[in-house]
Amino acid sequence: MTMHQAIAELGHVLGPRLVTARAELEAHGASESHFPLTPPDAVVYPESTEEVAEVVRHCARLGVPVVGWGVGTSLEGHALAAQGGVAVDFSRMTRVLRVSADDMDCTVQPGLTRTGLNEALKATGLMFPVDPGADATIGGMAACRASGTTAVRYGTMREQVLGLEVVLASGEVIRTGSRARKSASGYDLTGLFVGSEGTLGLITELTLRLHGQPEAVSTATCAFPSDAAAIDTVMACIQHGLSPARIEYMDAESVAAVNAREGLGLPQAPHLLVEFHGTEAGVAEETAAFGELAAEGGAEGFRWSSLPEERSTLWKMRHGAYWAIVASRPGARAIVTDLCVPISRLAEAIAETRADIAASGIPGPLVGHVGDGNVHAALLVDPDRPEEWETAERLAERMADRALRLGGTVTGEHGVGMGKLKHMAAEHGAAWGVMGAIKRALDPTGLLNPGKVVPQDR
Amino acid sequence: MTMHQAIAELGHVLGPRLVTARAELEAHGASESHFPLTPPDAVVYPESTEEVAEVVRHCARLGVPVVGWGVGTSLEGHALAAQGGVAVDFSRMTRVLRVSADDMDCTVQPGLTRTGLNEALKATGLMFPVDPGADATIGGMAACRASGTTAVRYGTMREQVLGLEVVLASGEVIRTGSRARKSASGYDLTGLFVGSEGTLGLITELTLRLHGQPEAVSTATCAFPSDAAAIDTVMACIQHGLSPARIEYMDAESVAAVNAREGLGLPQAPHLLVEFHGTEAGVAEETAAFGELAAEGGAEGFRWSSLPEERSTLWKMRHGAYWAIVASRPGARAIVTDLCVPISRLAEAIAETRADIAASGIPGPLVGHVGDGNVHAALLVDPDRPEEWETAERLAERMADRALRLGGTVTGEHGVGMGKLKHMAAEHGAAWGVMGAIKRALDPTGLLNPGKVVPQDR
Repeated sequence: MTMHQAIAELGHVLGPRLVTARAELEAHGASESHFPLTPPDAVVYPESTEEVAEVVRHCARLGVPVVGWGVGTSLEGHALAAQGGVAVDFSRMTRVLRVSADDMDCTVQPGLTRTGLNEALKATGLMFPVDPGADATIGGMAACRASGTTAVRYGTMREQVLGLEVVLASGEVIRTGSRARKSASGYDLTGLFVGSEGTLGLITELTLRLHGQPEAVSTATCAFPSDAAAIDTVMACIQHGLSPARIEYMDAESVAAVNAREGLGLPQAPHLLVEFHGTEAGVAEETAAFGELAAEGGAEGFRWSSLPEERSTLWKMRHGAYWAIVASRPGARAIVTDLCVPISRLAEAIAETRADIAASGIPGPLVGHVGDGNVHAALLVDPDRPEEWETAERLAERMADRALRLGGTVTGEHGVGMGKLKHMAAEHGAAWGVMGAIKRALDPTGLLNPGKVVPQDR
Repeated sequence: MTMHQAIAELGHVLGPRLVTARAELEAHGASESHFPLTPPDAVVYPESTEEVAEVVRHCARLGVPVVGWGVGTSLEGHALAAQGGVAVDFSRMTRVLRVSADDMDCTVQPGLTRTGLNEALKATGLMFPVDPGADATIGGMAACRASGTTAVRYGTMREQVLGLEVVLASGEVIRTGSRARKSASGYDLTGLFVGSEGTLGLITELTLRLHGQPEAVSTATCAFPSDAAAIDTVMACIQHGLSPARIEYMDAESVAAVNAREGLGLPQAPHLLVEFHGTEAGVAEETAAFGELAAEGGAEGFRWSSLPEERSTLWKMRHGAYWAIVASRPGARAIVTDLCVPISRLAEAIAETRADIAASGIPGPLVGHVGDGNVHAALLVDPDRPEEWETAERLAERMADRALRLGGTVTGEHGVGMGKLKHMAAEHGAAWGVMGAIKRALDPTGLLNPGKVVPQDR
């Protein structure tokens, strides 16, 4: 059966839930990344777990690949239908199913976004802290093991997901984990599906740990005389037992881009942006301690704030840095890549990367969630100049190699998708084969998001 | 080939590292649990990863089961050679291989115990926080996803292990994870091996997250008018954003047992034991806040301390509670079991369990890491009265059923081993089959710790 015939048969079975209009396909073939348009052959909009299972069972019968779709904010082409097939769009499964203030947890559907969840939690005094920048879906964030600015304090999706409902390649529905805070009851399947990028199953429900909205919040920005001084301050901060909710780095170029786009007058120097959460007294104590450590590191131009609107501006600026960076080279496209190393090697990783980018002739500002040792480069290429694409790709490859050489990982939070597949063997060695064995055990025909994460020599 | 012949052949190949003396076998056939003596057919003492791999390869060739052995403190028979074979004793692999104060991490061999590690860390200002009570090995703690008193603040082994070296059933050696604090690079194999109880591989090296030794520590005990009042105080404490490093519950019977054994004069009532870690100011603030919440809950008889020797006495008392409980019924053996539920259901779980035990006619004091919703019962049976064993087993089974009914797990921290195998299908449903599929993918002949964790119908 050709894909065309299979899709026609699926349309017959699934009715109006299956869409093949060109605009819909193209909207599900592009993400916030530099990959070429890769549309699926059809899009389905299930409204329940049973419908997801039904879609998977029919696709399995017909040999049609199945790829989950949130809102398309992933950066390594995770949700692109590399081998065609059906995109399962979760935009009709966005409900908050349950919130427990007593247990500080909730159960949600995968299509809900993180800001949607926090909006729903506002009156409860609780919050869901993971903040990758983009307003991604909770299902997509779990599938990609998202983290972002607050992971240094609250952890990544790995630490937030208590349990899952998952539709397997067989169409069978399983539940992993429970509402207990911890368990020693068998293999950690929850942890296995978190970060599996839709290659082992489709997540249809998530039980999440929540956190109290902090009583007090304080933020600060300050400029450093060098990258090394900024990173040393981050290390000192963590070693002194401070527990920032966020501790972000922007290099001088990123600051220049933000200055230009937002009309700010920040000194054009490496910056740290920090935020502390806690009681009034605790935040005051941590803030003062950070100020001392930063001053020892030569920091200047402190701006402190505990006013919500000022903080909001600060984090909008940080989250808008990507767009400011893209705008800093008119007409450019960004190849975005990330690495993560032990924090003692971070200054080295940044210095080598900066020198490499400087020598390449293309701009590539750096930002990072440096409390975790995580740095991002946005490599700005002229889309009409293929040699720039190649240069950027080589820079990204050397960043990955560097991360491994320094004891780290080729991606701290963006994931593997299609972009980092080529580094998996180098990073994991024989353990990559174990990932492949698990994939074959759970999805023997390669139905789910084929072409991603695991070895492709099946 | 009979087991006897296979062991003889192994002895020929492995030389003096393989031991079959009866006393050695029996020492590796009993644990701190109620399971009958289950000796292996031989014990090996590898001194390196390569030796472990060699043992596994020979055992695979000869069809001899392989079971890892730490110090035998597990409570569900995890390390007992249920189908005979070779116990791999890690007591000659106890080195600290590397400590990084800058990165707050270390790499150790699996046979090192947690107190051995903390002893080695003393001068660095760092600590390894996980405290299951027993002085277990780090390898065993990872294999069993141990937690204990401090998990409420620092997390379980799941949150501490950054990376592993593992010998697979094939004899192949893999590395999982890295020294980066977080990663989105493929399936979370580290998390999969943590808690797999030696059924997927033998852990030969661990990279661990460390934490700063707290600047200030404060502990308190107080008595409550009822279990419900104590548990309500725990919930209030967590909902108010307090972050106790430990928050432990002892029921009135446990307190009586400790009073009797240690000559203490604590009021015979439910108690909470709490500890706060942080800066001087932070600890003072949290301590005061806890005092207020506890007083609202009717707590009396507060004893506060920030003196190391007093704290040490307190936690020795808590850790000695098990032995005090066992001593409270002369000649008794304890069947120890644990459950973990959402904290909003904890008071219910305790009340039902207490009533069930009271009606049974055998003593069964309760203690628990209640900040996580985790409760333990020590069911005291006269070993010469089989009907008491049966009663205790039925009580433990009803505890497991109760945990599931209340949205929890049949074991918060003790693990599955042999004791909880019978509850896996009820807890996990079809997901248990997924665990079995992973086991078959990684260990197709069932070489590693057979008879544990996964479905046995192979």
